[in-house]
Amino acid sequence: MVLLTHRFEFCASHRLHNPSLSDRENIEIYGKCNNPNGHGHNYQLDVTITGEPDPETGMVLELSILKRIVEDEICERYDHKNLNLDVPDFKERVPTAENMLVVIWERLRGRIPEGKLYRLRLTETANNSFEYSGPRQAGTPNGAP
Amino acid sequence: MVLLTHRFEFCASHRLHNPSLSDRENIEIYGKCNNPNGHGHNYQLDVTITGEPDPETGMVLELSILKRIVEDEICERYDHKNLNLDVPDFKERVPTAENMLVVIWERLRGRIPEGKLYRLRLTETANNSFEYSGPRQAGTPNGAP
Amino acid sequence: MVLLTHRFEFCASHRLHNPSLSDRENIEIYGKCNNPNGHGHNYQLDVTITGEPDPETGMVLELSILKRIVEDEICERYDHKNLNLDVPDFKERVPTAENMLVVIWERLRGRIPEGKLYRLRLTETANNSFEYSGPRQAGTPNGAP
Amino acid sequence: MVLLTHRFEFCASHRLHNPSLSDRENIEIYGKCNNPNGHGHNYQLDVTITGEPDPETGMVLELSILKRIVEDEICERYDHKNLNLDVPDFKERVPTAENMLVVIWERLRGRIPEGKLYRLRLTETANNSFEYSGPRQAGTPNGAP
Amino acid sequence: MVLLTHRFEFCASHRLHNPSLSDRENIEIYGKCNNPNGHGHNYQLDVTITGEPDPETGMVLELSILKRIVEDEICERYDHKNLNLDVPDFKERVPTAENMLVVIWERLRGRIPEGKLYRLRLTETANNSFEYSGPRQAGTPNGAP
Amino acid sequence: MVLLTHRFEFCASHRLHNPSLSDRENIEIYGKCNNPNGHGHNYQLDVTITGEPDPETGMVLELSILKRIVEDEICERYDHKNLNLDVPDFKERVPTAENMLVVIWERLRGRIPEGKLYRLRLTETANNSFEYSGPRQAGTPNGAP
Repeated sequence: MVLLTHRFEFCASHRLHNPSLSDRENIEIYGKCNNPNGHGHNYQLDVTITGEPDPETGMVLELSILKRIVEDEICERYDHKNLNLDVPDFKERVPTAENMLVVIWERLRGRIPEGKLYRLRLTETANNSFEYSGPRQAGTPNGAP
Repeated sequence: MVLLTHRFEFCASHRLHNPSLSDRENIEIYGKCNNPNGHGHNYQLDVTITGEPDPETGMVLELSILKRIVEDEICERYDHKNLNLDVPDFKERVPTAENMLVVIWERLRGRIPEGKLYRLRLTETANNSFEYSGPRQAGTPNGAP
Repeated sequence: MVLLTHRFEFCASHRLHNPSLSDRENIEIYGKCNNPNGHGHNYQLDVTITGEPDPETGMVLELSILKRIVEDEICERYDHKNLNLDVPDFKERVPTAENMLVVIWERLRGRIPEGKLYRLRLTETANNSFEYSGPRQAGTPNGAP
Repeated sequence: MVLLTHRFEFCASHRLHNPSLSDRENIEIYGKCNNPNGHGHNYQLDVTITGEPDPETGMVLELSILKRIVEDEICERYDHKNLNLDVPDFKERVPTAENMLVVIWERLRGRIPEGKLYRLRLTETANNSFEYSGPRQAGTPNGAP
Repeated sequence: MVLLTHRFEFCASHRLHNPSLSDRENIEIYGKCNNPNGHGHNYQLDVTITGEPDPETGMVLELSILKRIVEDEICERYDHKNLNLDVPDFKERVPTAENMLVVIWERLRGRIPEGKLYRLRLTETANNSFEYSGPRQAGTPNGAP
Repeated sequence: MVLLTHRFEFCASHRLHNPSLSDRENIEIYGKCNNPNGHGHNYQLDVTITGEPDPETGMVLELSILKRIVEDEICERYDHKNLNLDVPDFKERVPTAENMLVVIWERLRGRIPEGKLYRLRLTETANNSFEYSGPRQAGTPNGAP
């Protein structure tokens, strides 16, 4: 199996705030990320696909297909947006990087051929990054590396 | 003369919108950066100081002094903020990178010893950066490189 | 077990073209990578070795040994070359990154002590990278991470 | 004056060879870059524009205009091409980075508003980069920094 | 499970030398890293934590907790130090990157909630990096990815 | 004129300490960089050469010549060394980045053809870099950009 990773980027703003907690709890948990008017990031999203290279083409997946899917599903929705106010995905969920990865996984796995989506990495700042390889599946070990 | 550059970072959101223009003009000029709820970036600010190294210390400026000034004047004010709503510097000025540089120069030149502030570089995304070396001075060539 | 990764670089040109397909199929599959006169990349090759650190030296493998092997086997053969025309490895195989990884694995595993070659990563452009951890072995789970 | 720099990328192959020199001289001068079948690079092109920010928009130049010009004039012509065989610009000129910069400058200065093109930087590999600020002008100092 | 990685940095000097070997053996094994007066690096330490995002906060671990632990345990002890002479951890152990990872793992796993420390990556130079995921545990597969 | 920049790297340790100052003054000025047993960095040295491209070769300077000079004069002397104890250049001078640049300039300008050495940049950590373009010359403006 070969892994292919393509990097996507989007610039967005967000606020970390859970309305079911008190203002004081929100500040204790999220610190400056709780600023009422939000702040923002240049997000890098690395999407990793797994597969046997096709013997005829020598490729795991045509890159143009992957790019179209991720741009449609994610970049168009999140780029140059306020994640809390403009993106329905985060109306009920705090847009932490961890929650973003779970949502992005759900969006992509329905569009990418079964079993090929392998790993997502979301880099929020030069020093903070996050990885997700999907939910554990009943009866099988986690597909995550 | 030796140039010393220290890199600072801040994460902020902004919206490019000039209220004296029509909505249609704003969209034509600023495109997706005009999104009403804003978007955000990880900004890198490179501050360059010039000077003769002190013969005793071998340094142009003690780095701790520069760090304190830029953190006080800029990072504290801009980091994890919405530049349009939280920062008075941009109440009357569109927070483009160009305008941000002019404002940052004004803030820093009053705190850094006369003649030592040499150049600012603001990197908005991996592919977009901006440089400024202060206003031209009457009767002298622009100090900018 | 500790993993040691060393990065190598080589600059090469290639053309993605499968002569058993029609010209039209080649263009549909490979797009601009099918340009008859080729194009090129600065390839980064990250070679990862696994092992217990030697209790005496505190090292998994002497780096000078790894460097000599990879430079001999890969960099000397591929650097500043046209992969299709100058490198016999790709006379019969399309030089996609996926196929390159399989060939590089074969070249290295015969020279690196048994069981120590762990993972290869080939970065073709800043946004496209590929990983390979060798073929699945009969009766055992894939050694890939 | 503010400087705005946007980074462009193109992947191309080339061969350094001057047909007016002997084969032996070509090898002595260009070394492995003289390989008959060529090699390739991921080129980064940083285009720097200078200007006063427009008081109304706060921008030196609309980025979309700059992107259209450079993509039309340079990326479309050079990306995924063999510079020697596919690009007329280098039919008579060896495609060294130095010569590429002179050609790119000529292509861009006719399309970018007078006096705004400030500097080009071409990065050939992580360790080799080149800068050019246009030809000296008669009677004036070189505009280059 | 989501993985969260935070990057830390420290600048230190070291000498690779095993006093139980002869001087000649030390030079053969460690080469220029055996220089009697040492040399130094900017080390990057990537600490990866694993966990289910807390349903209330949407986070695997509050980043401020992780930062305090790693800064206390590692950065305070190693930054701007000579690892051989100033750090008791390496009085009896050669400060190779491999040995450093084993020591850092021991220091961190006692402070980070059980089962959450997932992987360490230590980058010594742009081309050399090392990963460790803790000792194999009796009766269970290695937790390493 | 075209500028050509090549990046070199060396790993070294140093201590910032001026023996003509008191211990207390040294600590006040240099902070943790005054640690008696030193610390270290991966230094990047960018050497920039200026010139008209040779009409025959299309190059400002054969890169192999520049590499030989800088490796002989600088990398051989400084790489994997303790700058204070192993390098005579810093027996009488504190090895700050500023002083290192002045010394490196002196070493290179005697070996590089007259008028071609344009600028040096020394990067000490990801956030700290220094530039030098040689001493001002009597009767002429500083050659520095």
